[in-house]
Amino acid sequence: MQPLDFSAACPIPIRDYPHVLLAHGGGGKLMHRLIGEMFVPAFRNDLLEAQHDSSVFELAGQRLAFTTDSYVVRPLFFPGGDVGSLAVHGTVNDLAMSGARPLYLSAGFIIEEGLPMDTLWRIVSSMQRAAASAGVQIITGDTKVVDKGKGDGLFINTSGIGVVEHSLTIAPRSVRPGDAILVNGDLGRHGMAIMAVREGLEFESTIESDSAPVSGLVSELLRAGVEIHCLRDLTRGGLTSVLNEISEAASLTLSVEETLIPVREDVRGACEILGLDPLQVACEGRFAAFVPERDADRALAVLAAHPLGAGACRIGKVMEQASARVLLKSAMGVQRILDMASGEQLPRIC
Amino acid sequence: MQPLDFSAACPIPIRDYPHVLLAHGGGGKLMHRLIGEMFVPAFRNDLLEAQHDSSVFELAGQRLAFTTDSYVVRPLFFPGGDVGSLAVHGTVNDLAMSGARPLYLSAGFIIEEGLPMDTLWRIVSSMQRAAASAGVQIITGDTKVVDKGKGDGLFINTSGIGVVEHSLTIAPRSVRPGDAILVNGDLGRHGMAIMAVREGLEFESTIESDSAPVSGLVSELLRAGVEIHCLRDLTRGGLTSVLNEISEAASLTLSVEETLIPVREDVRGACEILGLDPLQVACEGRFAAFVPERDADRALAVLAAHPLGAGACRIGKVMEQASARVLLKSAMGVQRILDMASGEQLPRIC
Repeated sequence: MQPLDFSAACPIPIRDYPHVLLAHGGGGKLMHRLIGEMFVPAFRNDLLEAQHDSSVFELAGQRLAFTTDSYVVRPLFFPGGDVGSLAVHGTVNDLAMSGARPLYLSAGFIIEEGLPMDTLWRIVSSMQRAAASAGVQIITGDTKVVDKGKGDGLFINTSGIGVVEHSLTIAPRSVRPGDAILVNGDLGRHGMAIMAVREGLEFESTIESDSAPVSGLVSELLRAGVEIHCLRDLTRGGLTSVLNEISEAASLTLSVEETLIPVREDVRGACEILGLDPLQVACEGRFAAFVPERDADRALAVLAAHPLGAGACRIGKVMEQASARVLLKSAMGVQRILDMASGEQLPRIC
Repeated sequence: MQPLDFSAACPIPIRDYPHVLLAHGGGGKLMHRLIGEMFVPAFRNDLLEAQHDSSVFELAGQRLAFTTDSYVVRPLFFPGGDVGSLAVHGTVNDLAMSGARPLYLSAGFIIEEGLPMDTLWRIVSSMQRAAASAGVQIITGDTKVVDKGKGDGLFINTSGIGVVEHSLTIAPRSVRPGDAILVNGDLGRHGMAIMAVREGLEFESTIESDSAPVSGLVSELLRAGVEIHCLRDLTRGGLTSVLNEISEAASLTLSVEETLIPVREDVRGACEILGLDPLQVACEGRFAAFVPERDADRALAVLAAHPLGAGACRIGKVMEQASARVLLKSAMGVQRILDMASGEQLPRIC
């Protein structure tokens, strides 16, 4: 019917994967393969190939960052946030991970017919509060409505523009042997907050999502003169996916210690009940920072002085070996390779 | 469960509209009310309040345009295009309507679990061809997968960044009494191409969508020194919505003549069968241009010299009256008010 000349064969073997699976969106190996083997080669350009959280380009002598994310979290409201605040924090954080100061967001709503109007209003109000507290403006938008049964309440896309106001290249290729690996707090709360609601788990206290804008933390690090090499927020696939992505992009071995990685007891307990690995669970207000050893203590002090970095700590370092792998030293002192999950541990977590 | 302080009441009266309707995404009065009464006041800022196709802001002495659109067209493939090419053309055109040269796009995919992998590949390939021919790069992206039955094959969001390389303010507020109103070709083909497929209508020849990137046409107008006052692409709600939007934003009366508005016979016939008004049907490669009368003939000559403007013509003018309304003079010479449709004429056309 239509003049298609898609002469090239589908780069994902149809025999193995005739259909898109939930796991193709899960932050693990299948998603990385879909992106790396289909999207990146198809849209081939240097900026996309950098495969960082944001794309950084120069315009009129000014470096800008540009990023996009769609938010399909289920349920729409969860302890500590909702799809609206998440859609602001997630995109603000992707800009911050390139070392950019977030300025402007777009908001694209795909609403399922029948969504209660006051649910939409609660979410829009929440987006606005999140934007105001992150210091960004939502300056353009789009509204689509799809038939009942062809969506799931509400999906929100936010794209963002930020400005890079320093001369560092904050990206996986800047990671160097000897770099310290830091995180800004305990891991896995966002994912477990959502799973607890979905699975109806009851704990003594409610696990609240860590969803928050971390751009303020990044600007504090920059202001303190920390030579940041790389930043990456610990979203889909959790710490495990992030470390593997950076290790692969930098072609370096990373080594982390299990006893140094902060996970709250209630999160650990919920993970055990559900058979999940907390190192693979998404956060939405946590990131890993790669900084030179000489700046590590100062960076930790800066992070710890900020309310969103109170639990900051050092979890490992970048090794000399030029092979892409992640080593985890367990509490027992045994070292093993920390491999990326192949599939979908937690569907629709963001 | 969650610390919401949405103390302000929902600005859309819940009594009248307890739920979001398909019509809230249809480009007519209900959508404008949702945007104007909920989104714009909630996200209040000057850039959003301009309510143009893109938001234009200045950074480091350079004016930039930023826009977003989600594409939920059904079916995914239609004569003359698919959701992928549409997602590129639509966002490129929104940038062009602010007089910006489109540079970079983002691509956010929301895939329904079970989408055939080669369908995704066909669409991705089509996006790439459309981007290449429009001279833009897709530099950042996101992939989400939702459970089977919670989406509809594929939704794509594209956001775009462009650069404004002239000193004009191309926006509704620049429209002046006496301006000529031009269009770059016949109307309604995109919407009717899709409706013909959906309704199984058969004609002697297939109606093909007019989906195309019009940024080249805009740059030709600028190069020729045409003092463009306003541009608006004729998407959801068609010419009728666009004229009403501009009239309202400029607080001026617009007058157009039915006999001057180009609609192909097959499109007119399909509209008659389905009981649709071709002036309310979406195009995806057509726009209205408001230019000073002294530049009108030159603008028409520039448009007509371009393959995508071969059918360019003048359809009316801006009147002296400072009241927001659109007058349509019929073939019989009778003048009536051309009012915006309230609801959803053509759901999920883009």
